[in-house]
Amino acid sequence: MELGTIYEPIQEDLAKVEDRLRSVSKVDFLYLSELLDYSLRSNGKRIRPVLTLLSGKFYDYNLDNLLVMAMAVEIMHTATLVHDDAIDNSLVRRGRPTVNKLWGDEKAVLLGDYLFAEAGALTASTQNLRAIKLFAETLKTISSGELNQAFNAFNLDQGRPQYFQRIARKTAALFVMATESGAALSQAPEESIQILIEYSYNLGIAFQIVDDILDFIGTEKELGKPIGSDLAQGTLTLPAILLLERYPEDNPVERLFKNRDEQDNIQQAIQLIRNSPIIEECYQVASDYSAKACLNLELLPDNASRRALFKLADYIISRKK
Amino acid sequence: MELGTIYEPIQEDLAKVEDRLRSVSKVDFLYLSELLDYSLRSNGKRIRPVLTLLSGKFYDYNLDNLLVMAMAVEIMHTATLVHDDAIDNSLVRRGRPTVNKLWGDEKAVLLGDYLFAEAGALTASTQNLRAIKLFAETLKTISSGELNQAFNAFNLDQGRPQYFQRIARKTAALFVMATESGAALSQAPEESIQILIEYSYNLGIAFQIVDDILDFIGTEKELGKPIGSDLAQGTLTLPAILLLERYPEDNPVERLFKNRDEQDNIQQAIQLIRNSPIIEECYQVASDYSAKACLNLELLPDNASRRALFKLADYIISRKK
Repeated sequence: MELGTIYEPIQEDLAKVEDRLRSVSKVDFLYLSELLDYSLRSNGKRIRPVLTLLSGKFYDYNLDNLLVMAMAVEIMHTATLVHDDAIDNSLVRRGRPTVNKLWGDEKAVLLGDYLFAEAGALTASTQNLRAIKLFAETLKTISSGELNQAFNAFNLDQGRPQYFQRIARKTAALFVMATESGAALSQAPEESIQILIEYSYNLGIAFQIVDDILDFIGTEKELGKPIGSDLAQGTLTLPAILLLERYPEDNPVERLFKNRDEQDNIQQAIQLIRNSPIIEECYQVASDYSAKACLNLELLPDNASRRALFKLADYIISRKK
Repeated sequence: MELGTIYEPIQEDLAKVEDRLRSVSKVDFLYLSELLDYSLRSNGKRIRPVLTLLSGKFYDYNLDNLLVMAMAVEIMHTATLVHDDAIDNSLVRRGRPTVNKLWGDEKAVLLGDYLFAEAGALTASTQNLRAIKLFAETLKTISSGELNQAFNAFNLDQGRPQYFQRIARKTAALFVMATESGAALSQAPEESIQILIEYSYNLGIAFQIVDDILDFIGTEKELGKPIGSDLAQGTLTLPAILLLERYPEDNPVERLFKNRDEQDNIQQAIQLIRNSPIIEECYQVASDYSAKACLNLELLPDNASRRALFKLADYIISRKK
């Protein structure tokens, strides 16, 4: 299924979000304007703002507040990507040179700070204290998750519990913020908010597992970035953890993490994982989370948004980029 | 005058702020806890949280909210320092190795993000929408000021207007946030809030000018960081601008900015500035701002806080570190 079809119920709203994102870069200071325009005008999937828009359509909503919150969610996501790329020294993202590649680490760090602030200012402008607190707490969660990942780079002593804890922080937290803020801004009753939180938490976990799978089986062209970059950064993801479980005696991931001799072992690990049932097993785990995401969705009012949320849970698993 | 004497009216409150800052580092994740403890336990002057506490003591205040806001202001300041040091590759701050020196740039960037979020969460917990919006707008202002500085590194085509615009953004904005939030949290009437904004804006400008003077005439021991670091970073501050005005034909700052041949020209610029009336002239400018800061303070209720604000304006000029 195409994303365009899934997004249909909020297509017009999303177009408004895109327009307004473009207006964020209209600032007096020319260099900043260029940086904002470049970083916000990406060909990303916009899944997070879509979650906000869909989650906000079940009860009594003020469209303007939803649009502003959807912008905030996407801008916060962009800020984390800009900082991550600078930290990881990544050169390509979504098929384009990264901000750090084009302007240097210094500007990337400061642009990320500005984007966090812009997202915070937009969230504040909704005047909704729950959304505001959620914003700050989510940023704490994400950055502590990223710190955890950084401190555990090339650490072999990590299994599934550490992996799931880490992706809950670095990915699922923002998915939760996207739906919870949308719901909170539309007078949703607490039980409905909790259903959307549960949905987005499990969706976020499934999304990240698929991301981690694609880093092994995707193509650079589709992903818009090099394959095997998690291993190159020393990040242990689910496919690599299953490889360690399956070949405990001797395997290329262990050799890579111990000796840091990149290319040969990364290529061997990719081949070994592609030619084993590991990928299938990872997809099974992701599908289980995607199914869990939908478990209580039926309890929400039946409308076009609910149908889109169901479809999104399928899309997340089948996507190729 | 000693800071201890000036801080007397809010001494107990400040001790509580220090205690609570220590509790911020009590988190489950050990590495993060260490980073937070190290970065927040500094021997800084704590001027910004003091401004919040003093500004909050004129009308009807809730002490707990003031303490929380004072923490937020100091944590936000710490976050900007952690990012600045990583960006500038600074190795020493306040006599101690910087976070980036001890743990690397990657961790410094993520710690800064976490600190921004913590400051945001504390601000949000006051539930005061004016303080919350101010927080986000101030972070936008500071990071765009820092970006401006970064894009203008080694650019000779900058005079006094660009300098004052830059320090208003990168320094005075946070001074303003400190007083405005304290005042807003204590039911101050708008006219009083404006007086405190005017005070802190001018105080912040004076503070930064003195900072920039000390980078030429201070000692490494007193400052806790190397002398001449602004020039080394290609940052044109008031003393250097006056040097360019005074010796337009040929001077070491111009040679340094054009050829990037560090040590000789930096030392020559320091000597030339120290042995000219430039320092005196810069102090005069700073004193004018400090005097301007106090211009309307008399209109506030007469109390111990007001007396402390007057003294602080004197201290800012006379400080040696």
